[in-house]
Amino acid sequence: MMLKVLALTVLAALPAAAAEDLRGTGDLGLIVEREAGSLLVVDRSERAAIGRIEGLGDLSHASLVYSPDERFAYVFGRDGGLTKVDILTRAIVRRVVQGGNSIGGAISDDGRLIAVANYEPGGVKVFDAETLDLVADVPMGSKTVGIADVPGSRFAVATWDTGEVWILDHSQDPAQPVITRLEGIGANPYDALLTGDGRTYIVGLFGEKGLTAIDLWQDPPQVTRFLPDYGKNQPDLPVYKMPHLQGWTLADGVFALPAVGLHQLLWVDAEGLTEIARTDLAGQPVFALARPDKREVWVNFAPPDNDKVQVVDVLTQQVTDTLTPGKGVLHMEFAPRGREVWLSVRDENRVEIRDTRSREVLGEIEARAPSGIFFTDRAHRTGL
Amino acid sequence: MMLKVLALTVLAALPAAAAEDLRGTGDLGLIVEREAGSLLVVDRSERAAIGRIEGLGDLSHASLVYSPDERFAYVFGRDGGLTKVDILTRAIVRRVVQGGNSIGGAISDDGRLIAVANYEPGGVKVFDAETLDLVADVPMGSKTVGIADVPGSRFAVATWDTGEVWILDHSQDPAQPVITRLEGIGANPYDALLTGDGRTYIVGLFGEKGLTAIDLWQDPPQVTRFLPDYGKNQPDLPVYKMPHLQGWTLADGVFALPAVGLHQLLWVDAEGLTEIARTDLAGQPVFALARPDKREVWVNFAPPDNDKVQVVDVLTQQVTDTLTPGKGVLHMEFAPRGREVWLSVRDENRVEIRDTRSREVLGEIEARAPSGIFFTDRAHRTGL
Repeated sequence: MMLKVLALTVLAALPAAAAEDLRGTGDLGLIVEREAGSLLVVDRSERAAIGRIEGLGDLSHASLVYSPDERFAYVFGRDGGLTKVDILTRAIVRRVVQGGNSIGGAISDDGRLIAVANYEPGGVKVFDAETLDLVADVPMGSKTVGIADVPGSRFAVATWDTGEVWILDHSQDPAQPVITRLEGIGANPYDALLTGDGRTYIVGLFGEKGLTAIDLWQDPPQVTRFLPDYGKNQPDLPVYKMPHLQGWTLADGVFALPAVGLHQLLWVDAEGLTEIARTDLAGQPVFALARPDKREVWVNFAPPDNDKVQVVDVLTQQVTDTLTPGKGVLHMEFAPRGREVWLSVRDENRVEIRDTRSREVLGEIEARAPSGIFFTDRAHRTGL
Repeated sequence: MMLKVLALTVLAALPAAAAEDLRGTGDLGLIVEREAGSLLVVDRSERAAIGRIEGLGDLSHASLVYSPDERFAYVFGRDGGLTKVDILTRAIVRRVVQGGNSIGGAISDDGRLIAVANYEPGGVKVFDAETLDLVADVPMGSKTVGIADVPGSRFAVATWDTGEVWILDHSQDPAQPVITRLEGIGANPYDALLTGDGRTYIVGLFGEKGLTAIDLWQDPPQVTRFLPDYGKNQPDLPVYKMPHLQGWTLADGVFALPAVGLHQLLWVDAEGLTEIARTDLAGQPVFALARPDKREVWVNFAPPDNDKVQVVDVLTQQVTDTLTPGKGVLHMEFAPRGREVWLSVRDENRVEIRDTRSREVLGEIEARAPSGIFFTDRAHRTGL
């Protein structure tokens, strides 16, 4: 308890004072405090909170991306708000309510464009990263999901109502993207992911079983259906119960992905896109994230098992550890070279920091019902 | 010419003024000016030099690594100097001459230790990253080469005189590393590389043909000899003529590596470690670097072809472009998400910036005989 009280005291004093200091931004991060509509600014090296940014609106299911200099973050709120924050001054730079219900965004690989996918009014809006002025508005006659930053100033997005994937190429004229439209992707895409090399865009389907992979290196992009039974064991469920595809991970030539509605991790050969193994788990998996060295996959769970985290060895596909950080483990973020992992323990209002090898608890930080943790090294990675 | 004059003027004015500004460090970089013993501080977003740090001694073959916060760099000079510089204030924080002839260093994955491999007096010295105080001195009875940061506060290094690989594990006690010593690696290791996942340590041999790969995921580490003809076409040559292994690259399940003494790029299956293809090139390759999306490999050359850069497609293994940036292209560095590439054109005293897709020249920066270019995103990567 002493530790927690101390952390809170320090926090209250910090935001104004520290903002003037000269500092690098490579070891900073933001933690979403969804109920409070705020972001906690953290320092990885100090394992401490160094400030808070408030007034970001509805942050349920919020995500964010970073500018290439790792100073600014663009926060995509559920209320359609797009907010640019400055993590050095801990201030909101600009906030626009750009849609009625937004579910994610992406930053172009040159850092100049921010694209937002909208449920309401649907389609994609693209903004200038500097000013947040509208650059392009691309209606698609559908809600959009799973937007991602394809290399070459491009964005890929899937359309829920029409079962398509659109690729917007802004490299010639940011305001007039060249559009490649792929039809017949499958019924009701509910989420998508782009692999870290920007090559493969994988779409999850709510309206039918199976998944769709798109090879963006081919011209035209090559569409492949795979895992025809994926989602088969699951009765009709609302969308928010489907595992998010960002919980997929690619390690050592295989994808590890959460099974839908089962207490299992599926292993899929990345080349042939066929299932090669299953690992039994302690609960229904939500995220299955590779440690940065790809040697292990760390898994968290849906209720009632969301107090646990399991560690699975990639070589043997066996569970090697079951940890119990506490009630409501919503998210995990690894230090970029994998030395430690930060875990949001929402129901205990804290973030726990563990050594990824000894599993030892290295520290903890007080936070208000924390959910997503985002370190600034994401600025340098594709598909986040 | 106007552009060059302008760049020089701005440079002269900048170092003092800009140092006080609050700024992110994710888009900064350092360019080695070897003859001048200085580092040019550059801003990727502005495509401009923003300062210079002088007085670093002999910077021939110099390399550097970054602190996790992307504020400090540790520079390993040929004269045995280890210099810590602050890229925000453009100042030397501390400089120690720690050996007689150093050939490279590494930073531990927790950012706390700096290890330097020495020709003179041999062995490895490990320093505190904060203070540069000596933490551990590990004599090995040999010159050492190819030091790399293995995950878990470990370092791997090869010994030139005794043909061994030593793995130093500092995770329990930084001052007393636990040592794993692998003998019979091959005659006269001259360089080594660690793959980006930290799994495979590859050692180049000067005293015999072939290479050695060490799988660090196995316990004990598994040693494999491969490419038994590698280096066969090359008569006895001084060490500095051998291609550096840092010029290797792993893309899409294959290694692309410069052939020794031939105008060819070799393609090696990463799983089986067997040669699968060769690509004819315009000269003797020095670096073969994958664009961050792994779709292309960019190659520069030894004299007399060091005015050229060739681009090779990973899918077809065909040369798709031959560029001629200018005399003395010594190094290439990609923006972390691959949107542009910076090229040192030493003999023309400038750095050229190109779009990696259109190949268009986007800008250039005046520099004094530039060699290595190092962007701060390296702080977040293993094996650099």
